[in-house]
Amino acid sequence: MPRTRRALAVILAAGEGTRMKSSLPKVLHQVAGRSMLAHVLTAVAEAGVESVAVVVGPGRDDVRDEALRRTPGATAFVQTERLGTAHAVLAARAAIAEGYDDLLVLFADTPLVTGATIGALRDALAEGAGVAALGFLAADPFGYGRLIQNDAGSLLAIREEKDASEAERAIRLSNAGLMALDGAAALDWLGRIGNVNAKGEYYLTDVIECARADGRDARVVLAEETEVLGVNDRIQLAQAEAVAQGRLRRAAMAAGVTMIAPETVFLCADTSFGRDVLVEPHVVIGPGVAIGEGAVIHAFSHLEGARVGAGAAIGPFARLRPGAQLSDKTKVGNFVEIKNATVAAGAKVNHLTYIGDADIGANANIGAGTITCNYDGFFKYRTEIGENAFIGSNSSLVAPVKIGAGAYVGSGSVVTKDVAADALAVARGRQMEKGGWAAAFRAAQAARKAKK
Amino acid sequence: MPRTRRALAVILAAGEGTRMKSSLPKVLHQVAGRSMLAHVLTAVAEAGVESVAVVVGPGRDDVRDEALRRTPGATAFVQTERLGTAHAVLAARAAIAEGYDDLLVLFADTPLVTGATIGALRDALAEGAGVAALGFLAADPFGYGRLIQNDAGSLLAIREEKDASEAERAIRLSNAGLMALDGAAALDWLGRIGNVNAKGEYYLTDVIECARADGRDARVVLAEETEVLGVNDRIQLAQAEAVAQGRLRRAAMAAGVTMIAPETVFLCADTSFGRDVLVEPHVVIGPGVAIGEGAVIHAFSHLEGARVGAGAAIGPFARLRPGAQLSDKTKVGNFVEIKNATVAAGAKVNHLTYIGDADIGANANIGAGTITCNYDGFFKYRTEIGENAFIGSNSSLVAPVKIGAGAYVGSGSVVTKDVAADALAVARGRQMEKGGWAAAFRAAQAARKAKK
Amino acid sequence: MPRTRRALAVILAAGEGTRMKSSLPKVLHQVAGRSMLAHVLTAVAEAGVESVAVVVGPGRDDVRDEALRRTPGATAFVQTERLGTAHAVLAARAAIAEGYDDLLVLFADTPLVTGATIGALRDALAEGAGVAALGFLAADPFGYGRLIQNDAGSLLAIREEKDASEAERAIRLSNAGLMALDGAAALDWLGRIGNVNAKGEYYLTDVIECARADGRDARVVLAEETEVLGVNDRIQLAQAEAVAQGRLRRAAMAAGVTMIAPETVFLCADTSFGRDVLVEPHVVIGPGVAIGEGAVIHAFSHLEGARVGAGAAIGPFARLRPGAQLSDKTKVGNFVEIKNATVAAGAKVNHLTYIGDADIGANANIGAGTITCNYDGFFKYRTEIGENAFIGSNSSLVAPVKIGAGAYVGSGSVVTKDVAADALAVARGRQMEKGGWAAAFRAAQAARKAKK
Repeated sequence: MPRTRRALAVILAAGEGTRMKSSLPKVLHQVAGRSMLAHVLTAVAEAGVESVAVVVGPGRDDVRDEALRRTPGATAFVQTERLGTAHAVLAARAAIAEGYDDLLVLFADTPLVTGATIGALRDALAEGAGVAALGFLAADPFGYGRLIQNDAGSLLAIREEKDASEAERAIRLSNAGLMALDGAAALDWLGRIGNVNAKGEYYLTDVIECARADGRDARVVLAEETEVLGVNDRIQLAQAEAVAQGRLRRAAMAAGVTMIAPETVFLCADTSFGRDVLVEPHVVIGPGVAIGEGAVIHAFSHLEGARVGAGAAIGPFARLRPGAQLSDKTKVGNFVEIKNATVAAGAKVNHLTYIGDADIGANANIGAGTITCNYDGFFKYRTEIGENAFIGSNSSLVAPVKIGAGAYVGSGSVVTKDVAADALAVARGRQMEKGGWAAAFRAAQAARKAKK
Repeated sequence: MPRTRRALAVILAAGEGTRMKSSLPKVLHQVAGRSMLAHVLTAVAEAGVESVAVVVGPGRDDVRDEALRRTPGATAFVQTERLGTAHAVLAARAAIAEGYDDLLVLFADTPLVTGATIGALRDALAEGAGVAALGFLAADPFGYGRLIQNDAGSLLAIREEKDASEAERAIRLSNAGLMALDGAAALDWLGRIGNVNAKGEYYLTDVIECARADGRDARVVLAEETEVLGVNDRIQLAQAEAVAQGRLRRAAMAAGVTMIAPETVFLCADTSFGRDVLVEPHVVIGPGVAIGEGAVIHAFSHLEGARVGAGAAIGPFARLRPGAQLSDKTKVGNFVEIKNATVAAGAKVNHLTYIGDADIGANANIGAGTITCNYDGFFKYRTEIGENAFIGSNSSLVAPVKIGAGAYVGSGSVVTKDVAADALAVARGRQMEKGGWAAAFRAAQAARKAKK
Repeated sequence: MPRTRRALAVILAAGEGTRMKSSLPKVLHQVAGRSMLAHVLTAVAEAGVESVAVVVGPGRDDVRDEALRRTPGATAFVQTERLGTAHAVLAARAAIAEGYDDLLVLFADTPLVTGATIGALRDALAEGAGVAALGFLAADPFGYGRLIQNDAGSLLAIREEKDASEAERAIRLSNAGLMALDGAAALDWLGRIGNVNAKGEYYLTDVIECARADGRDARVVLAEETEVLGVNDRIQLAQAEAVAQGRLRRAAMAAGVTMIAPETVFLCADTSFGRDVLVEPHVVIGPGVAIGEGAVIHAFSHLEGARVGAGAAIGPFARLRPGAQLSDKTKVGNFVEIKNATVAAGAKVNHLTYIGDADIGANANIGAGTITCNYDGFFKYRTEIGENAFIGSNSSLVAPVKIGAGAYVGSGSVVTKDVAADALAVARGRQMEKGGWAAAFRAAQAARKAKK
């Protein structure tokens, strides 16, 4: 069902994150190959939210730029003082004032929240609530604000730990912080929130009281505790990563990917798989990877920015770098690196090889130890290898160079000139032998060693 | 105690496995390097079962072939219609009719069941029971059939979730599906099972009622929930793999293998270890691997079909492929691949090397970057390296070729002819120098770069 | 607060460890890159203990040597008979008799005990207790001695499982074995312990009774169960490793290291990290590694005895061996091994290279497939590469050899003579071509293949 209500998401991204002990702002730390901020922006888009306002700290152009890169129409607002969450939301007052049906308040350091959950908050507004707060059943609620409900399930208040009675402390239903507000009333309510409290801050949770004072209902939407995990240090960052990886692995397996040991396979949010892909243990997949049906990714492989064709076999110990485009039924074996190169159908690069800035024709065979010499310290050059060509082992192909279709390069050659189709090229030294030399050498070295 | 009763196992292997989303039949998916069907066949053999009948789906020659490969005397029966488990067992009517003391009904998608547990089912028959059903205490019994017992422990019925009373639903003892039936009565009982139920299917669980109607006792044999895990999708396949790996690792450690991080080491059902083997983190071992006493398998190593001698040191980053036969105290170092080759005692292959189709003599030293050029695009050829030979780094050995005992190959040589024992062979270009060339080149390239 | 009391630790290290099934004595098995004995010695030093006596089995010079290597002033005593823990402690009678305020009894197979916990045992003595025993709340206390306390928390007795009443068996507070005794009274108490019991052994736990008979208080100090894990077999060794790794990872993350998948990263007790280091999944770090601020350790890297400068990028698939000294902003890429070599700032070694016994100048570029040929079968030789030098791909540098600053080595060269600064060196064969040869070869081989 398409949504008819228009929505604005205000994403609070100004947290300093001192417990991260990092020079990188907290919300740019990554989970599953994307910044935490990008994850929230993705979830917002999945929930059909039209407009996004990101509240950033002073001078944090890097955070603003990441928001704009991920969501081109987003607007950024600077939070100049740190006076509480309600005050932070009001940094985006100009955006809120444009008039939306739904105002969503999200946190860029809560990266696991899903589009479905944001949608559920919106549904509560569509059903008439003035406010919807996201709650979770905390395994250990100590320290969290508790959601106080009446028998009908209406949210009466959010009680901080220190203000809670003993009965209220026994409540496990805790405040995740994320909220949806009726967009028409939001600015009024936010403006009425005061700061008469111990810390002198403006708390967003006080909006419940404002809404109820206006006779509006407040509701609770429930999420899993893992979904609302907030990241404040690197241990929590690793926990968020684990949750994200678990989701990605289960989705891949459900779609027909075999993972012998899913807990040792690391994916990115944008990894795509065909059916009947087999992923062995210990595989790391970075951003921008697509793997075709029936491909096998052997153990200890590392892929980034690469396309793997159907029925291809990769690894073990293969590294595919950005721009590696492998067609169907290609083979890339152990200790092989491929970068910015096309490998046509049926071609094989099986051992100890570096292929950079190259095009390899169909069914070509690249021998063990082959190196494309693509760099002269200043520029990169391209190597072209024709279909059915055979490159002998331990060859160096000094780019720019073309090996014709069906040509044959002798083992150990250093090829600096183009090779014609169907020709043989050999470029290596002549073999000479000195009889008995090794025996004499051994005797001499053994004597030296004995003297030492 | 040897068993005197003769037994037939009927293994149901016709499940379509649509939730696997695979073109491979479900029971051929692998756990610990073996098909699930093979695991069940192994357990059956361990329980001393003489005869095996496998019930396969129409056209599933691949399943039949796997059964025959693993258990040469097995017979296969095709289940043409899907009318329930009792009906499936009767597909093997001809085998059952040959007359056995024990009839075991097993499932090829329940790969973790052990020979000991199958033996316990047989023991129950030997002690007089007409039927023995395998049960487990489910952590969450919802959805499982419950085993209803009287105070004496006799099994009265197996109650499906939807037919169970509230009291019965509270029972955690659940039906694993595996059963043993008195072979003399089995055909009669199976024939009496009807299909007057919601789905119109013939349920094997109704055999309890038949046996009890004949005055025979039905017993429960208890298994761990993990042992009776059924595999219906790839997530469950990964769970089964984890259980199987846990068993293999614990057995290896109990026998004197150190695993620094067993959860990162993957074994096969047939992996064998000597005492005091050390396996570092992140190691993958495929089928057919034997590792001798005191060997060290360093991190990031990948072994298949290989023998590793006592006191050998492998890896890190080593790949041993089928036919790698490493004698005692050999060393295979990083980024080294060895395939179809013998390496005699004390020989070293330490870095960035491909050894394929070769024989390396005792105490030979293979320099970094050595490649055996064993393939011409059509045929494979052998390289022989004598004992105490020294192969200089970055050499190419173009097979077929023999390097004599004690011979010395100069670094960077391309060896195309045999080298005599104790001789020196050098096959490389002469070094030439152009003074100042690099400075001029840098200036020119920098100028080009500046212009761009 | 500095301690004024003088302390002796008696470390029992004579256990045979038959369940380890190892030829190595149990206490020399390693956890986090150090022997279990060394871990206990480290904790003892952290607790400010002045003197250490290690009780070893007969002929176990290896255990004694490890103790002396880690704690040079330690004394070793041989336990000739196995007559119980109290008897074992008395093997160190001569050391105890020197007169200490605190006598600590520790076990070399309990490697996870911390200095803070040993300090807490000492604190109990400083506060007046005659004995302090370490206890833990066992998840499953079956088999452990239970700590029997009065209402004031004084320790009345340690009751073995078999002697315990039903009420006592319900106690979860269990005996970890570690104890602190008033040094002035210890020899007297230990001497009074008898062996009138089923096994005829002298039990250290009886010291509680002796102390209380003298009117001295016995106290309990509480530890986590994981901290007092005793290692008797390789499964427990792996459990201890997991606990130790968890501690090291959490400490690193708390200090500002990002670990995408901490459970796949293995550290040593002495690993040091700067801030904002990123460690990708699947990394193994051995002893003696220091990593500078902002460095990135990519997946599948293996480091031992190496220093990594600030802002350096290592891996994936890199191996740094002892003596690898990488300056700031260096790059070491895939399938690269570096050993006993310095790499100056900004230098790059990106692919498929072996650098051994070398010095690489600032901003030098080492091409793919470069090998330093550092070994002649008897001696190792050094390679020197000047700053800004460019080594073409697939080159062999035959040491001893010097490449001058700014020099350029052509791809595929075998360099045996020094190269002047700013010069070009080329050492390879001439390229020759035979037109049509490959087509003819293919036809001939295909014919041979068809005949086979």
